[in-house]
Amino acid sequence: MFLSDGVFAIAMTLLVVELSLPSGIVTDADLTRALFSLGPKYFSFALSFAVIATYWVSHQRIFRHLIRGDATLVMLNLSLLLCIAFQPFPTSVLGTYSTPASVTLYAATLFVTGCVVLALWVYATAGRRLVHHDLNRRMVQHQTLRAACVPLVFLISIPIAQSNPSAAEYSWVSIAILLSALRWWYRDAR
Amino acid sequence: MFLSDGVFAIAMTLLVVELSLPSGIVTDADLTRALFSLGPKYFSFALSFAVIATYWVSHQRIFRHLIRGDATLVMLNLSLLLCIAFQPFPTSVLGTYSTPASVTLYAATLFVTGCVVLALWVYATAGRRLVHHDLNRRMVQHQTLRAACVPLVFLISIPIAQSNPSAAEYSWVSIAILLSALRWWYRDAR
Amino acid sequence: MFLSDGVFAIAMTLLVVELSLPSGIVTDADLTRALFSLGPKYFSFALSFAVIATYWVSHQRIFRHLIRGDATLVMLNLSLLLCIAFQPFPTSVLGTYSTPASVTLYAATLFVTGCVVLALWVYATAGRRLVHHDLNRRMVQHQTLRAACVPLVFLISIPIAQSNPSAAEYSWVSIAILLSALRWWYRDAR
Amino acid sequence: MFLSDGVFAIAMTLLVVELSLPSGIVTDADLTRALFSLGPKYFSFALSFAVIATYWVSHQRIFRHLIRGDATLVMLNLSLLLCIAFQPFPTSVLGTYSTPASVTLYAATLFVTGCVVLALWVYATAGRRLVHHDLNRRMVQHQTLRAACVPLVFLISIPIAQSNPSAAEYSWVSIAILLSALRWWYRDAR
Repeated sequence: MFLSDGVFAIAMTLLVVELSLPSGIVTDADLTRALFSLGPKYFSFALSFAVIATYWVSHQRIFRHLIRGDATLVMLNLSLLLCIAFQPFPTSVLGTYSTPASVTLYAATLFVTGCVVLALWVYATAGRRLVHHDLNRRMVQHQTLRAACVPLVFLISIPIAQSNPSAAEYSWVSIAILLSALRWWYRDAR
Repeated sequence: MFLSDGVFAIAMTLLVVELSLPSGIVTDADLTRALFSLGPKYFSFALSFAVIATYWVSHQRIFRHLIRGDATLVMLNLSLLLCIAFQPFPTSVLGTYSTPASVTLYAATLFVTGCVVLALWVYATAGRRLVHHDLNRRMVQHQTLRAACVPLVFLISIPIAQSNPSAAEYSWVSIAILLSALRWWYRDAR
Repeated sequence: MFLSDGVFAIAMTLLVVELSLPSGIVTDADLTRALFSLGPKYFSFALSFAVIATYWVSHQRIFRHLIRGDATLVMLNLSLLLCIAFQPFPTSVLGTYSTPASVTLYAATLFVTGCVVLALWVYATAGRRLVHHDLNRRMVQHQTLRAACVPLVFLISIPIAQSNPSAAEYSWVSIAILLSALRWWYRDAR
Repeated sequence: MFLSDGVFAIAMTLLVVELSLPSGIVTDADLTRALFSLGPKYFSFALSFAVIATYWVSHQRIFRHLIRGDATLVMLNLSLLLCIAFQPFPTSVLGTYSTPASVTLYAATLFVTGCVVLALWVYATAGRRLVHHDLNRRMVQHQTLRAACVPLVFLISIPIAQSNPSAAEYSWVSIAILLSALRWWYRDAR
């Protein structure tokens, strides 16, 4: 599916459009200050690139196992691409404001995206619908838990964001920890 | 044709550029209000993504059946890509204004796009020009009616838009109903 | 070369970014007027799409005949992509201004692009360097003349543009006539 | 990896967005003056296109030799794509300002990008991890030196930029000279 890789590539690259300097820069010191003041924007650029890249890796992993396709799969895949194409907007909002509303928007977007990835995986593997019938059972379980854990963390971070947006942002790091733990737990099932 | 998938992917992803916040946001309540006031823009983003995705599915379905190509096919395909590449403009207009003129522009664009898809399909299948000579006759008929019904609805919605733009927008939903009816009617011809 | 198709697809689709409405539109009549006043921009959008599509067809035709590649070919191809990626800028200038300077910029860009296409074709076929050694001689001649005639017309239109920009724009139509004549003349060499 | 070619293609083509005319142009002479005053922007557009194209050539060269992949390779490749996707920002800054800070930002970006390319190559070839075990030893050495020499020149240019930004920009030309010297030195190892 070249379309999928195209949408992922464009969403990743469009994020850079958010990085722009204010006008009214005259001296080199002004420019240095302006470049440093973009700090939160660099962070949201790198974070969102990493997030989209992670979803791309999941997408690749799912599609590698598929041996057939159907209309529902195409629909679910296009829904995932809709979420990915939307991504530059919450990224831009989060890069400009760091309030409960912006963190909620970002977490909600990634919650929905994660749910679509989970739906894709469960739809494809339930009853071995679109995958080989002797696919390793523990591997399927591992991938299901991985796919479930991402939207779960984003969902939990939404109430946290209402009182403490920064705490919500830090809570996202737990995804990396949970995924590592899962990888260790299922280290026999590759 | 990687070019086709590229144009579809970019047109889908560029739609997000329309989503942007007004300046002058200070408090979190302002941001929440601004995010909600983007309502019609989210709607036109999702609608246009769905429209382009639907045309992509049609495009895939047509090209899957082709067993040869010629210069006219390339010309028709490039005309379709021109329509797809133009799509972000009427989307942006419809996202900003909801008047007869904006609805007419949108419906007219999709009418022309639908006509090009229909022309592609008829050109390829008439006399089995570019497809296998024993392609199922009823399947070809089904696809022709599908391809004809999309521009027809958009054409009919143009006079409706002059007096009632919202009614015209709602009339587009009938496309989904008509396509489902056709799918049921031709359920034997896959 | 997915990179090539990617650059062509993006350059084609980015052209739409030029189409935008002025602010200060209140009534539906304002919007209608604004949409019609974009006339020259629609024209330059369609023209540039057609131009890039034509170069893409030439690019495809050249690469279909290649049976090997080398570092010089990659260099020439990347130079062509540089020209294609630059294309949205002169298009935007021509869509806004219709003066000797804008027409000259546009014609000069397409003159250089055409020269690079010609260089690619001559480099690949001279002494049958990168193509099959028994490629039809008259077909090679035909393609060389086609590739030479595009930059020639743009070059001639530059002095015309200094006194009469519109005449220069109309002179570009002669490309279509010349290519048809060549196709008729070489109708035996496919 | 279509994703990689997509990101390279988009980063190359997005650079053109930087080219835009100031408002307030009335006469043809104004336009001519404005087009010429964009001089440094044309230069940074062409320079950055050439830089990204060069990294693309390196990327192609590395991936041509790979016979397997692993998770670390995907991670390193995505890091490279992050650097490539970031590229339009320092390009835009360098096209607008030519001060120590902008030259430093540009050189630092390319230093990091070059280091990631070097890491990719060393990771893939060390102990013949991801390449064929009898890959020509001198060829590997040549490519390692090529990949090392790019970030080295950009690193050295950073202190130069603090006192003389133009000298730093000119120093980048030495990359072309060094690469030619290496190609001559290793002319037996292809």
